[in-house]
Amino acid sequence: MSSKEIFEERRSINFFDSKKNLEDNLLKDIINRAVLAPSAFNLQPWEIIAVKSKEAKDKLYKLSSNQPKVLEAPVTLIILGDKNGYDKSNPIWDIFLKNFDGDEEKLANTQGFAYSLYGTSEERKLKFAESNAALLAMSIMYAAKSFGVDSHPMSGIDFDGIKKEFHLDDNKTVVMTIALGYLEESKTLYPRAYRKNYEEIVKEL
Amino acid sequence: MSSKEIFEERRSINFFDSKKNLEDNLLKDIINRAVLAPSAFNLQPWEIIAVKSKEAKDKLYKLSSNQPKVLEAPVTLIILGDKNGYDKSNPIWDIFLKNFDGDEEKLANTQGFAYSLYGTSEERKLKFAESNAALLAMSIMYAAKSFGVDSHPMSGIDFDGIKKEFHLDDNKTVVMTIALGYLEESKTLYPRAYRKNYEEIVKEL
Repeated sequence: MSSKEIFEERRSINFFDSKKNLEDNLLKDIINRAVLAPSAFNLQPWEIIAVKSKEAKDKLYKLSSNQPKVLEAPVTLIILGDKNGYDKSNPIWDIFLKNFDGDEEKLANTQGFAYSLYGTSEERKLKFAESNAALLAMSIMYAAKSFGVDSHPMSGIDFDGIKKEFHLDDNKTVVMTIALGYLEESKTLYPRAYRKNYEEIVKEL
Repeated sequence: MSSKEIFEERRSINFFDSKKNLEDNLLKDIINRAVLAPSAFNLQPWEIIAVKSKEAKDKLYKLSSNQPKVLEAPVTLIILGDKNGYDKSNPIWDIFLKNFDGDEEKLANTQGFAYSLYGTSEERKLKFAESNAALLAMSIMYAAKSFGVDSHPMSGIDFDGIKKEFHLDDNKTVVMTIALGYLEESKTLYPRAYRKNYEEIVKEL
């Protein structure tokens, strides 16, 4: 597949073939390609719950406005952002320390800068978690397409209910879910929905 | 370029060649490819300020922790999310009405659902704007790479200062900025920073 086709052929498909599995190794390949996405300070404040079992699917289905694709797709990913991902507990900072040749003061200054940007209010913490985890979400959808796998992102979901029913820490935010699998061949997709173009969304200064 | 290369060759480059321009038509091609990204209800709650002039670059540079790439890259995009993008004022709803064969009640129900998901608190509004606009941000970086253009996302920026100095409405959130251009050839990139892999970030249920 050419790079252009990733963009033009990625569609949010509503109809998954429930008879087609997504092999474990292929899911790993998709995720390990997608995590090449960038993030603030490379902190990667993201986690994923891969919903594969019937029990977990049934639970998520009820929390997803009963969207059939949660049951039909072989796997649905719950994309989580970590609102505390900027703080000292993130093990990625250990890599910074190595890159700084063990300079603890430089590390502390960098952590202080990250705190000032992302940690000074609940609003900033949410912004940090949502924006970074959404970079991963988009990267997953394109990475899936690059392996010939279709996707559908969902945010018509019970964000609070998912946090509760999947026993998530309060510092996690449910950013969106992404169903992965293959189009049910008896279905035809609608033409792609209208997109606002350059002239409509860009202001040049 | 193959689809795999988009992921493996996209790097956040710190050193832009200030002598290489980014042609207007190429920037348009990048954005018009990137907007094929999905968004909640296809509402596309995003806008972009393309900072190209010396005056605008100088202003953004001071609000970007004096990061030289803002001055060196031919263009830096300010990615904005619209916290009110779910509400009735979004013209995308007109397309829904057409798709619903003019059924005003169905439109009102769908708008009500979107409000319940994204509009019931400041936190939800921010989450909606940040996550959707970040999908576009990631799509822009990959689309740029697909056209051979390098990028660098920045969130070490004065979010509030940019809102003020660029006279943005209060319903807009500054999600991140993205410098676009070409690597300064005399510079060598560091090896790619460590990424957490599937086993480290995915929990299967």
